[in-house]
Amino acid sequence: MPEQENPPPAPDDSRAAESDAESAKQIAELEDSWRRTAAELDNFRKRCAKDLLRAREQERASVAARWLPVLDNLERALEHASSNPDQIVEGVRAVHQQALSILADLGYPRREDDTGAAFDPARHEAVSTIAGEDLVPGTVAHVVRAGYGPDNEILRPASVIVATRSE
Amino acid sequence: MPEQENPPPAPDDSRAAESDAESAKQIAELEDSWRRTAAELDNFRKRCAKDLLRAREQERASVAARWLPVLDNLERALEHASSNPDQIVEGVRAVHQQALSILADLGYPRREDDTGAAFDPARHEAVSTIAGEDLVPGTVAHVVRAGYGPDNEILRPASVIVATRSE
Repeated sequence: MPEQENPPPAPDDSRAAESDAESAKQIAELEDSWRRTAAELDNFRKRCAKDLLRAREQERASVAARWLPVLDNLERALEHASSNPDQIVEGVRAVHQQALSILADLGYPRREDDTGAAFDPARHEAVSTIAGEDLVPGTVAHVVRAGYGPDNEILRPASVIVATRSE
Repeated sequence: MPEQENPPPAPDDSRAAESDAESAKQIAELEDSWRRTAAELDNFRKRCAKDLLRAREQERASVAARWLPVLDNLERALEHASSNPDQIVEGVRAVHQQALSILADLGYPRREDDTGAAFDPARHEAVSTIAGEDLVPGTVAHVVRAGYGPDNEILRPASVIVATRSE
C-alpha cells in the first residue's frame, strides 16, 4: 500500500520545493481516487452477493406462485368428485392443460411426441429397447415419459423405448 | 484524470532531481494501481449483471423441474380414468398431496385453516362478509381459497369470508 511519505522539500531550492509540493498534492489525490475506487469495488462485491440471493428468492417465489391455481383447481376437482364422479375427469384434464401452459410460459413447452424419430441421446433417455418387424432400428418406438424444454434448453429429456434389430 | 506530467527535474540540483524521480515513480505506480482497480470494478459490474440473469434462469429451471412429476402423475391418472373411473379420485388426491409437498419444500407451506381466527389483513384477503348469530364479528367465517407461505413470506394470503355483526 502507498503509505510511504514524500521526502521533505529541499528548503534551499524554491523551484524544487514547488515541484515537490505539486507532486505531493498529485500523489495525495491519486491515493484518494484509488482508495475510493477500491471501496466502491468492495461495496459492489457485497451488494452483488446480496442481489444474487434476492434474485433467486424472487424468482423462486414468482415461479412457485404460478402453480397455486393448479392447487386450487385440484382441490375444486376433488371437492366435486363425490357429488359428480364423472366430472372429475374433465376437471383433471383442464388442470393438466393448465399445468402444460404454465410450463410453456416459463419457457419449457412439452416436447412433441418423438415416436418414429431417430434416437438422439441429447433429447432422449433410453429406458429399454424393443424389437419388432414393423420398427426401424435406432428409432424411438414409444415415448414412456414426455420431455420438456426447447432443444437449446432441455429441462428433461423424454424417456423412450428404442427399437432394435429383430434377431 | 491524472494525465498531467511531472515538471522535469532541475538539472543543477541532484537532490531535487532524485526526489522528483522518486515522486514520478510513485505517481506512475499509483496511477497504475488506480486504473487496475477501476478496470476490476468495471469487469465486476458486467459479470454481476450476467450472474444475476443466470441465477434467475437457473432458479426458474430448478423450480419448474420440480413440477414435472405432477404433470406425469396427472397424465397417469387420466390414462387410467377410462378403465377405472374410481381410481382417478385416489390418483388426484395423491397428486394434490405431491403438489403441497413441492410448495412446502420451496418454502411456501399451505397456511393452516384460519376459520374462527381474527381477520388480519396481512394474512387474509376479504372476499365477502356474512352475518350469523353463531359467528363472532371480525373473525374469519370461512376460508374460500387457501393461503400459502409462512408469516414472514406470504406467497398468497388466504381468501376469506369475514363475519359481521348481524342486524
